Amino acid sequence: MNHLITLDDLHDFDQLLKAMQTIQKNPLAHEQLGRHKTLGILFFNPSLRTRISTQKAAQNLGMQCMVMNFNNEGWGLEFEDDVIMNGTTSEHIKEAAGVLSQYFDVLAVRAFASLSDKAKDQAETVLRGFARHSTIPIINLESATAHPLQALADGLTITEFKKTARPKVVLSWAPHPKALPQAVANSFVRLMQRMDTDFVIAQPEGYELDSQLTKNMKVVYSQQEAFDGADFIYTKNWSSFSHYGQVLRTDDAWKITSEKMKMTNNAYFMHCLPVRRNVVVDQAVLESPQSLVLNQARNRIYTAQAVLKSILDEA
Amino acid sequence: MNHLITLDDLHDFDQLLKAMQTIQKNPLAHEQLGRHKTLGILFFNPSLRTRISTQKAAQNLGMQCMVMNFNNEGWGLEFEDDVIMNGTTSEHIKEAAGVLSQYFDVLAVRAFASLSDKAKDQAETVLRGFARHSTIPIINLESATAHPLQALADGLTITEFKKTARPKVVLSWAPHPKALPQAVANSFVRLMQRMDTDFVIAQPEGYELDSQLTKNMKVVYSQQEAFDGADFIYTKNWSSFSHYGQVLRTDDAWKITSEKMKMTNNAYFMHCLPVRRNVVVDQAVLESPQSLVLNQARNRIYTAQAVLKSILDEA
Amino acid sequence: MNHLITLDDLHDFDQLLKAMQTIQKNPLAHEQLGRHKTLGILFFNPSLRTRISTQKAAQNLGMQCMVMNFNNEGWGLEFEDDVIMNGTTSEHIKEAAGVLSQYFDVLAVRAFASLSDKAKDQAETVLRGFARHSTIPIINLESATAHPLQALADGLTITEFKKTARPKVVLSWAPHPKALPQAVANSFVRLMQRMDTDFVIAQPEGYELDSQLTKNMKVVYSQQEAFDGADFIYTKNWSSFSHYGQVLRTDDAWKITSEKMKMTNNAYFMHCLPVRRNVVVDQAVLESPQSLVLNQARNRIYTAQAVLKSILDEA
Repeated sequence: MNHLITLDDLHDFDQLLKAMQTIQKNPLAHEQLGRHKTLGILFFNPSLRTRISTQKAAQNLGMQCMVMNFNNEGWGLEFEDDVIMNGTTSEHIKEAAGVLSQYFDVLAVRAFASLSDKAKDQAETVLRGFARHSTIPIINLESATAHPLQALADGLTITEFKKTARPKVVLSWAPHPKALPQAVANSFVRLMQRMDTDFVIAQPEGYELDSQLTKNMKVVYSQQEAFDGADFIYTKNWSSFSHYGQVLRTDDAWKITSEKMKMTNNAYFMHCLPVRRNVVVDQAVLESPQSLVLNQARNRIYTAQAVLKSILDEA
Repeated sequence: MNHLITLDDLHDFDQLLKAMQTIQKNPLAHEQLGRHKTLGILFFNPSLRTRISTQKAAQNLGMQCMVMNFNNEGWGLEFEDDVIMNGTTSEHIKEAAGVLSQYFDVLAVRAFASLSDKAKDQAETVLRGFARHSTIPIINLESATAHPLQALADGLTITEFKKTARPKVVLSWAPHPKALPQAVANSFVRLMQRMDTDFVIAQPEGYELDSQLTKNMKVVYSQQEAFDGADFIYTKNWSSFSHYGQVLRTDDAWKITSEKMKMTNNAYFMHCLPVRRNVVVDQAVLESPQSLVLNQARNRIYTAQAVLKSILDEA
Repeated sequence: MNHLITLDDLHDFDQLLKAMQTIQKNPLAHEQLGRHKTLGILFFNPSLRTRISTQKAAQNLGMQCMVMNFNNEGWGLEFEDDVIMNGTTSEHIKEAAGVLSQYFDVLAVRAFASLSDKAKDQAETVLRGFARHSTIPIINLESATAHPLQALADGLTITEFKKTARPKVVLSWAPHPKALPQAVANSFVRLMQRMDTDFVIAQPEGYELDSQLTKNMKVVYSQQEAFDGADFIYTKNWSSFSHYGQVLRTDDAWKITSEKMKMTNNAYFMHCLPVRRNVVVDQAVLESPQSLVLNQARNRIYTAQAVLKSILDEA
């Protein structure tokens, strides 16, 4: 693996899935592997699970970690080529990435979608900028359009809990008062393209994901249709892709409820967290025995660790 | 020990005091004890001594540490049950505490009093929320009503410097331009309930501490009366408890001066820091040989270390 | 070495330069030296290279590191003596430095120039305050008037790349839209006073550096004159010293271009970074094979490491 920006960068998904399962059973089996290696973690946005689980993964491998919150502790970075930098940015990504490549062995970066500039978000300006100008592997900790480590943890969780070889998995949109990125949903779709499942996406009109990504995927406009016989309900809000970054509705018709879960094949409930209780999903669902949200969060450690181990093994 | 929210959570104060004394003499005696264990430290408020001494304590025990400043690096947490989360909070304490319990072995949290909502402060919403929903031990790094690690360091310092079996100890209010919490004073009162001293609280009218806490304690309204024959003067400002969170006076009649210290039995001066020079106390007192403020700060390491060691020993 | 505030604090520059060269070749040769030692790093201003390279240096020596961003994570510090602290500062440097001296073995501090109060900046209030009241060595990570670790890295880089025993080195002012401190330029001047070079400072009228510092140094008002036959062009913007902190001009007459570089003896280009592309220097120069900016940044690790090693060796 060179960089991990989206799941498309993974050469062998099945091998990585096996590695995650092995690590999950014995997380400290390779605690000397990362000796003398340093992981840099740059946040351009807030983080809880990703912040801690990524550090934990590095620590389990014996790597050193340095965390930097770029907005508070650094300055504006310039990502455009050939620009006269007399505005608000103080350093070009070419220098920043070049310098950090000398200090770190691996660099993990979080930079959310703006949700205002679709072209810039789609171009993955920040993550692609780091990838292009770094001489070390870049790991995506959620970018404008993708959150591959979350998807990998979700894949590990589904593998862990599935009761049939080919479970029915639903990705269901749910309401939220604020405009959220499509990154988690996008990466979950990419995950499903790698796993053998009966997969269906359910969302209201206007909330269709990028059609380039979902072509050949089953898409429905009814939770009732999607939930029927489902083994896993993966829920997430995202803002509109066609009306880019807009919140088109905030009513609770698409909220996940216990009643809706009864339409499924006693499905497991999944969400990447953070989740707004009783807005996205009723707390009864979240606290039910079928809820896997804590398992997903725990698996974030092993997923990040498998990716880091794969990088260290190749180095 | 399960959680340490207030000193009331300590089963055996005398044993912990002995452990602190042992650690003080040889802080690196157990540097392998915390191997493969991780301490999470969450700050909802600024910190200097607590921030560094707690990390140092963990380090002395060979624990890994991860520090997160929640307000800057995270998002709003919801502590109310059964709420529809369509406002400013993005994650419920149930999920946050559940997730962090999987990443850390021990979790230390600082969350100051609001000083505006007495009921919420008295309920210790944040610390009790973490304690209730975590499956790992929670350590209070100063909450709305208590600062137990400070009190333990103060107890160690008094034990170290006392010249008689039962010293006279004064907790004296002093002026301050800003409204400060009662947490440090409360925990010092609880400490005195555990130690054999001649203890007296001195404060002006309107600044009485929670009467539930101070019942059966000696309270006077005159520094002159309190300081007479005192061996330790512990000074701290706090805002009014009855007129909750209000600053009732800012004159310097209750400031600690060299003249007032002369009324004592050559008493030691104590303050938890940070302290405003020449407002709370004259700098001559602070810089006198009788000042123990640096000793108190140093003992913060050994106190935190004794608490962590006690948790690791039980695990 | 006691404190390192400016290069004047170095007793034996040549010995330190040799130590830097040795470390550069084998950075992990002394990875047990810092065992049980802790470096505190306090930032009062943003930082990228200094933040990471200093941590990396400590890590290479086996030291523990604790980083604190004082403005976000702490409170206002008071540096004036004998003041009644009833304003915006919450803790006096005497207490803060005294406490931190008990937690750390070495303390590194960044505190930029205000550029508004010349007397205060010249007095190095923050760094001198820490040095005066600490009982442990203080390392300057860029103060109001000096950036010694940068200068040392520059000295190592020039030593590494020079082709003649006594190269011609130019310090050239360049334009910038914002008012920047003189710290980097000052320390480069001090470096040149320690190294055997043909050194010339070039700047426009009004941008003369502190004449106390530059007395006996060659100063010209023409890049053309300075660049002729030069082996190293060290570029940096700084605001006016005489019209303290002011930006007197923003035109691009003094910008470094490929054409100007052609006037030199195929000189290397140097800049401490961050640099504004096409404002301070044309990107063609920055990306040319003669650009040493990444080398300078990498050498920040070895420089900080040599300084820390020297402190640990003496301890």
